[in-house]
Amino acid sequence: MRVLILGGDGYLGWATALRFSKQGHDVALVDNFLRRRMHLERGTDSLTPIHRLQERLEAWKEVTGKTITAFIGDLQEWEFTSRVIKEFRPEAIVHYGEIPSAPYSMIDVHHAVQVHQNNVNGTLHVLFAMRDYVPDCHLIKLGTMGEYGTPNIDIEEGWIEVEHNGRKDTVPFPKQPGSFYHLTKVHDSDNIIFACKIWGLKATDLNQGVVYGIDTPETVLDERLINRFDYDECFGTYLNRFVVQAVAGIPLTVYGKGGQTRGMLDIRDTLACVELAMMNPPKGGRMRVFNQLTETFSVMDVATLVQAQGAKLGLNVQIAHYENPRWELENHYYNPKHSKLIELGLQPHFLANTLVDSMIERVIQYQDRIIKDEIVPRIRWGSGDAETKVTIREYEPATEPIPASD
Amino acid sequence: MRVLILGGDGYLGWATALRFSKQGHDVALVDNFLRRRMHLERGTDSLTPIHRLQERLEAWKEVTGKTITAFIGDLQEWEFTSRVIKEFRPEAIVHYGEIPSAPYSMIDVHHAVQVHQNNVNGTLHVLFAMRDYVPDCHLIKLGTMGEYGTPNIDIEEGWIEVEHNGRKDTVPFPKQPGSFYHLTKVHDSDNIIFACKIWGLKATDLNQGVVYGIDTPETVLDERLINRFDYDECFGTYLNRFVVQAVAGIPLTVYGKGGQTRGMLDIRDTLACVELAMMNPPKGGRMRVFNQLTETFSVMDVATLVQAQGAKLGLNVQIAHYENPRWELENHYYNPKHSKLIELGLQPHFLANTLVDSMIERVIQYQDRIIKDEIVPRIRWGSGDAETKVTIREYEPATEPIPASD
Repeated sequence: MRVLILGGDGYLGWATALRFSKQGHDVALVDNFLRRRMHLERGTDSLTPIHRLQERLEAWKEVTGKTITAFIGDLQEWEFTSRVIKEFRPEAIVHYGEIPSAPYSMIDVHHAVQVHQNNVNGTLHVLFAMRDYVPDCHLIKLGTMGEYGTPNIDIEEGWIEVEHNGRKDTVPFPKQPGSFYHLTKVHDSDNIIFACKIWGLKATDLNQGVVYGIDTPETVLDERLINRFDYDECFGTYLNRFVVQAVAGIPLTVYGKGGQTRGMLDIRDTLACVELAMMNPPKGGRMRVFNQLTETFSVMDVATLVQAQGAKLGLNVQIAHYENPRWELENHYYNPKHSKLIELGLQPHFLANTLVDSMIERVIQYQDRIIKDEIVPRIRWGSGDAETKVTIREYEPATEPIPASD
Repeated sequence: MRVLILGGDGYLGWATALRFSKQGHDVALVDNFLRRRMHLERGTDSLTPIHRLQERLEAWKEVTGKTITAFIGDLQEWEFTSRVIKEFRPEAIVHYGEIPSAPYSMIDVHHAVQVHQNNVNGTLHVLFAMRDYVPDCHLIKLGTMGEYGTPNIDIEEGWIEVEHNGRKDTVPFPKQPGSFYHLTKVHDSDNIIFACKIWGLKATDLNQGVVYGIDTPETVLDERLINRFDYDECFGTYLNRFVVQAVAGIPLTVYGKGGQTRGMLDIRDTLACVELAMMNPPKGGRMRVFNQLTETFSVMDVATLVQAQGAKLGLNVQIAHYENPRWELENHYYNPKHSKLIELGLQPHFLANTLVDSMIERVIQYQDRIIKDEIVPRIRWGSGDAETKVTIREYEPATEPIPASD
């Protein structure tokens, strides 16, 4: 199958590109190196030393004999996006090509607008290009469980039957996202629902939980294929971040009480879910939604697990409760349904002690690359980055261990 | 009260500015003449000859002795928007400053993106400027009943209590908008809900029906104060358009069967609703929503009314059923609740024969300004403006009456 991976230089995009290429699909990727550039801006970096995209692709060819085509450009440019889709004529588009960070979107007005433009306009371009050039193509769009927020009712997979005043209808599940980034994903979902309806497009929205893990069977084939692994305030998800903190001797940054409960999944399950979605396309006309998670944990559950596993490996892991920079409930009902991918055949990797151990060991390998002063929460939902003025602050080298405040 | 009217050179903005100024409020307006420029692009114009904004404001001062300050600029420019709000320090912001046209947003990818950027980014700037400079200000935002679509359940005012699997929650009413324009208003509503929640802002979202009427008590004080009156495919609402067609001898352009049912209201009621919202601000933290309509009619109801009233005035009014260019149901349940503004004291002007008569007479006054070839539907939801390529088409003067197809 001809598969186009948007955001193919990223954490999930790169792993997905390799997996599908290995399986014999004709894979091309699109990237504009925005993640690498945002790291430059924030003074952060992947823990793992990722290679130039050109080197990564050459290594892949050397190791497997397979070619992945790269289109370098910005989905916000119509001439670029439409040309790629017109020329490559994908049968499936896996769309990871968005800014994925809640804190980054909350830095200030300019970042909020940038995330809106990048995500919403890019996806609009993809939808119009599909309509014009590949109307039978299947769009597999990465959404997020954060679109739903934490309602006091069960979270269904995208659509809910509502009975009201004696009448019934099936309507989009009401969304209550918790950052401007999450809002852009809601806007995307609404736009995709509409595009499917009026143009008969095929689309699957994957509302994904928090992903953890470093390696996939393909990324370990050669050190030059190593995957990105972010742990900083903006781009790290919290299990990944906790493991890095455990190794670096930094107290785990739990926001508030840590009762926030979220869906999670292993990066290998992300790849399996995307594959299941791709191999079982929906009919056109109505956007399909899967909730893509395998388990739910509170933040404290995860912190405690990392602490315990760290202790076994001789690490003295502290937990620090930071003032919560976000606006979110720290104790709430949370019951997201997630049976549709299981019904398609997903066999989850549940979060096991051995996985945490292996992540810790992998992080130890690169511990000299840890940038310690960029992990603690600075960006506040109320005031953005005003307090520490990160974007214009003078550089102060970290000389002292960062204290665990609470 | 210091009131800032965004989009103050427009149909509702101008009428609102005059009304509040007359009442003694300290009124300033913001506009970038986008409506006038979009008319230039489309080859259309207001039926009524509207004067330069500078002339309008001078006439207002001459007639009433009152000054309205104008800030000319684009809400998409943060430096502009933040400076206006910082300097004027409004206590209420009435936000009409968005592109309001469903067909315009469906022309092509560039128009869809333009409407997104103009509407969503402008509103983001307003929200951040409120947070930074006037956190107690009340944002009165013009939404649209089109955000809801036509669900098979009663439409509540913004929020709905859902009982699901034995649990209850009050959540945003699920939206199913019918164009990229309507989608931008949904995106705005979602962003405003979030901004209210995290920053404690005060906001009222007015989900307004289809407005009709030309004159208000203030706009008739002097011919130089006359209000804009659009009737073209992009910017005309359908009762306004039907009246112009009746006068011009053009068959009324009913899309499909005309069973589409919508909420409607008199422009004088729009002003009363905005005033009621302003004088009764909500608490901060949770966006308030009013459904702003006074009656519901099907398109055929309205066409038949115009036909009957035209006949009394000696006009032979035909009705033509055009292939529906939109994706919408032509027969559907429609029961939007709209009691909150009534509870605040709204006394509606119901659509009466006399009003239609007076509109017809007013249009006859300006009938030599009617641009006949820009009323019929050309922009199709499926293919945009591709069929007639309006934006790049050669100009063909209308030499024949436009036939009534069906």
